[in-house]
Amino acid sequence: MNNFRFTHFLTSNAHLDRDLTDQILSHCSRKEVRKGTFLLRSGEKIQHSFFVEKGLLKQYAVDKKGKEHILQFAPENWLMADRESEYFDQASSYFIESIEDSEIFYINKDLILQLAKADERFIAFNNFLLHRHIRSLQKRITQLQSAPAEERYLDFIQTYPDLTLRVPQTHIASYLGITPESLSRVRKELADRHRSHS
Amino acid sequence: MNNFRFTHFLTSNAHLDRDLTDQILSHCSRKEVRKGTFLLRSGEKIQHSFFVEKGLLKQYAVDKKGKEHILQFAPENWLMADRESEYFDQASSYFIESIEDSEIFYINKDLILQLAKADERFIAFNNFLLHRHIRSLQKRITQLQSAPAEERYLDFIQTYPDLTLRVPQTHIASYLGITPESLSRVRKELADRHRSHS
Repeated sequence: MNNFRFTHFLTSNAHLDRDLTDQILSHCSRKEVRKGTFLLRSGEKIQHSFFVEKGLLKQYAVDKKGKEHILQFAPENWLMADRESEYFDQASSYFIESIEDSEIFYINKDLILQLAKADERFIAFNNFLLHRHIRSLQKRITQLQSAPAEERYLDFIQTYPDLTLRVPQTHIASYLGITPESLSRVRKELADRHRSHS
Repeated sequence: MNNFRFTHFLTSNAHLDRDLTDQILSHCSRKEVRKGTFLLRSGEKIQHSFFVEKGLLKQYAVDKKGKEHILQFAPENWLMADRESEYFDQASSYFIESIEDSEIFYINKDLILQLAKADERFIAFNNFLLHRHIRSLQKRITQLQSAPAEERYLDFIQTYPDLTLRVPQTHIASYLGITPESLSRVRKELADRHRSHS
């Protein structure tokens, strides 16, 4: 057994045994990618899901004016995919790009689709991942519709504890769906409040 | 075989055979509910998924100020559920309420969870539903982040062709994440443009 985060992810989170874990790993390739590498471009069909062994990915859509809207980040131990493109075999609406030098496991799409039909343990694991994904998407929608900027920012910090230091403020604002100016204001208010309490 | 929309939904969309369809139907109950009935309240664990045989449901969150934010509508032939509450057995963040007198199939949660483990045909069907759900949630997020109000409204019309006449404007504005005033403006502009072209 090797010491990859990915191996640990599969055996601990998914409770997959060694056979299945080895089978999955043998169908994956591990790549080192430089900051600014595109793992998926909008308009392409996704061929892999990605597990972040080291580094950081962002997934985003670009609107007609060329503005970037970040759907999610994936730091170490996160999976990133476009389930829509993967399952429906259709062109993706998203870009996936590394925003740090990264080490990524490329998980073959066909492997996932095949195991998701045939292997009972993988079915259960995949089902868990799909529902967890739905949970996070539902939360995103409700937050975008209703939560005040400060609440969104606090939730961002909770979801991605160390990303406030690794990611430019413009990226965080894009993820939160607010302007960089609003984000500065929120951060300043939180800092002021913190100071007055300490 | 009966003539319910739900039976047709299961046999045609899901390609489930008669045995499995009968099994599912025998675990469901069909209820007539009056307009304004709560099928789920925020804070409860969901016990059923719902198929709309006739009528109309809305699913929404209520923010701290008491404002309603509509996640989705379900007219005839639509399913409505909270996959998060169902799968993780946790309190829902949503209300589900009938906004017309409706005829609803209540699909037992345990039946779904059980079939999703055991029956190959149902696994495939459920997998399809989960991915379709993810597709629609992803689209909602990108739209909320980036699409202009007019584009959101046109997409609403495409998704729910007859709902513009069945649903109050305030509901549509809530779903779109815009003010009722913005919605009026969008509708007026579209009507003006339509007139000038005809």
